[in-house]
Amino acid sequence: MASSCETVWRDARLLTMRDGRFGLIEDGVIACRARKILYAGPANRAPKFEAEKIVSCDGRLITPGLIDPHTHLIFGGSRAHEFELRRAGKSYREIAEAGGGIWSTVCATREASDAALLKSALVRLDSLIAEGVTTIEVKSGYGLSLEQELRLLRLGRQLEQERNVKISTTLLAAHVVPYEYKADPDRYVSLICDEIIPAAVTAGLVDAVDVFCESIAFSLAQSEMIFRRAREVGLPVKVHAEQLTTGHGAALAARFGALSADHLEYLDESGIQAMAANHTVATLLPGAFYFLRETQVPPVEALRKAGIPIALATDCNPGTSPLSSLLTVLNLAAVLFRMSAEECIAGVTCHAARALGLQDSHGSLEEGKVCDLAIWNVSNPAELVYNLGLNPLHTRVRAGHE
Amino acid sequence: MASSCETVWRDARLLTMRDGRFGLIEDGVIACRARKILYAGPANRAPKFEAEKIVSCDGRLITPGLIDPHTHLIFGGSRAHEFELRRAGKSYREIAEAGGGIWSTVCATREASDAALLKSALVRLDSLIAEGVTTIEVKSGYGLSLEQELRLLRLGRQLEQERNVKISTTLLAAHVVPYEYKADPDRYVSLICDEIIPAAVTAGLVDAVDVFCESIAFSLAQSEMIFRRAREVGLPVKVHAEQLTTGHGAALAARFGALSADHLEYLDESGIQAMAANHTVATLLPGAFYFLRETQVPPVEALRKAGIPIALATDCNPGTSPLSSLLTVLNLAAVLFRMSAEECIAGVTCHAARALGLQDSHGSLEEGKVCDLAIWNVSNPAELVYNLGLNPLHTRVRAGHE
Ligand SMILES: [Zn+2]
Ligand SMILES: [Zn+2]
Repeated sequence: MASSCETVWRDARLLTMRDGRFGLIEDGVIACRARKILYAGPANRAPKFEAEKIVSCDGRLITPGLIDPHTHLIFGGSRAHEFELRRAGKSYREIAEAGGGIWSTVCATREASDAALLKSALVRLDSLIAEGVTTIEVKSGYGLSLEQELRLLRLGRQLEQERNVKISTTLLAAHVVPYEYKADPDRYVSLICDEIIPAAVTAGLVDAVDVFCESIAFSLAQSEMIFRRAREVGLPVKVHAEQLTTGHGAALAARFGALSADHLEYLDESGIQAMAANHTVATLLPGAFYFLRETQVPPVEALRKAGIPIALATDCNPGTSPLSSLLTVLNLAAVLFRMSAEECIAGVTCHAARALGLQDSHGSLEEGKVCDLAIWNVSNPAELVYNLGLNPLHTRVRAGHE
Repeated sequence: MASSCETVWRDARLLTMRDGRFGLIEDGVIACRARKILYAGPANRAPKFEAEKIVSCDGRLITPGLIDPHTHLIFGGSRAHEFELRRAGKSYREIAEAGGGIWSTVCATREASDAALLKSALVRLDSLIAEGVTTIEVKSGYGLSLEQELRLLRLGRQLEQERNVKISTTLLAAHVVPYEYKADPDRYVSLICDEIIPAAVTAGLVDAVDVFCESIAFSLAQSEMIFRRAREVGLPVKVHAEQLTTGHGAALAARFGALSADHLEYLDESGIQAMAANHTVATLLPGAFYFLRETQVPPVEALRKAGIPIALATDCNPGTSPLSSLLTVLNLAAVLFRMSAEECIAGVTCHAARALGLQDSHGSLEEGKVCDLAIWNVSNPAELVYNLGLNPLHTRVRAGHE
């Protein structure tokens, strides 16, 4: 008897990306029922389907829908002017005095209306979606007050109403110490722990808690307080760490079972061991590496040896990574970090899902997972990584629907 | 009395790019008659127009249509596999033995049908056009025989029939010594001079002649023969030079009045002097620099000081720059070469036109020039350079038509 289902895609090459491997299936079929994958495998082993719609893919490649697991998508203003100053060799101090820096984005974000913030975020979101992205993480972090951080999380969730995309929201109240608390940063940490985290949980607006753990942001002791509080209320944690120095934030976060530690240019062996022991994903951000003209490459080979899954993300933000293309991230990771095509694609599918705690429902072409697909006008998977500034997306499928 | 014209764009900010400067006009108007710019200037000094069509730009920025002055757009096959091998540290010899390298593209190109070559070139051309490109240079160089090089030039010209774009064709028969002439490269140089150049001229298929002047390609003496022949038949010359070593090809080409010398990472002071004396444009190719992970940056500051116009191009090719986005080139040039937003935009408008000998008809918003425009959803010109992987094009106008 034939299984009934809504859509069958046939005559396709599948990159299943199970366990982070291509898992290429030459003559593949995918069937979708009730938003989920009913079957993804070889045509010659497929059951018979009674489908409402059959799509012939003419030999095109199908990957899982892409996942961008680290973005600061929602912000006010632009820092193009600061980019010009930095390019011309101005110091951080001179830039701040000229009204630049992260604080300028906080001010512009606080002043912007909800509608203006959504409008500008949607431009960037649409750019990601146009390249096959179906899930995107969105951090707060430019509000830095109870009310403003909750507003940013709420706007993040609202993106799911505006576009057919899955959003994962992360509270990054610990992005930078706000001006109002410069004299007493610990008071701001208390605000985060005692008010912002509980309120975000009560409002049901938050999927994870993140901390920017660097000497210029939050200390290990401050980060630990925030991680502890997050775990107490049942939220998983993430960390921005080891970007500029070996600050040991990755190891700290890993000990709190962090989903991911992100950046990691200066990660050392003890950090790697802690991450491996706690199944923490390494999320690398080659866009920030490129824009800041860093020379210290993250320890990719050591991560590989330790069996740590590597995710990749745009880090889309106005200061250090004004980047709205996940395919560009794949190319940057291959060229600058020497990652293979398989590693790059795993980094924005299977391992990116794990970095968001979504590994059971997203990131690979497996039965029971949400039917998020990207169908590409390429035959060789390496084409997705090798070309820069070319978008070979043919069709994007989100929860079974184009 | 009002001047009659076809279209007026009003309520726009204009970057006129005259003489390579922004020349920003805050409240600007452009009028087009018979494919050309009738007026481009401030609204308050504009004559009265009787226009068939009036377009309000809602304060958007208008630049000249973008110009990509160096591409190898037409080729067969793909070298994604070789990209993977190179990334994994394989040597040039190992790659060649695995069927990679430039010669593999020559073989794939020779074997491909006209239709297949056009189809794949159009994917890349459409990617460029989608970002506001209105003029593009297309080189031959993967044919390397009389018949095949003429075929590539003919296909290049045919792109103008396929899309609303201006194509400038360059004969690059001197790209690499073909396998058939390995034992006697000078015989191939004679073929270029005695047969290919004259035939291309007779067929009316060629706008300029280019030579890859490096130790691994053509010597100074061989390049000189080709330049001399080109000038005898009235064609301007260009050169690929100083990419890997200081080979002095730029100075040689400049002495033949070259329109441009391209790459130039290793250009020395004598080369700069020769280029300045002969009004040769420096065309920089940050895509190849990025993909090859070069560390030697072209002498941008010395070029500035010498008053040499700097153009920028994709160098779109399957081996060293699989790049189909001119906006990405702007970002690469700003980040990697520290060029200003004004220099970057001049590099793909005004100076790019000069690199193709089109400075009298293209590359700036000036009366009498062809009405090629790019209308952008940005207010600050630096936004065109600062963002990576975001396409803010609103409308592209080619010879007065959207
Ligand atoms: Zn970040
Ligand atoms: Zn070239």
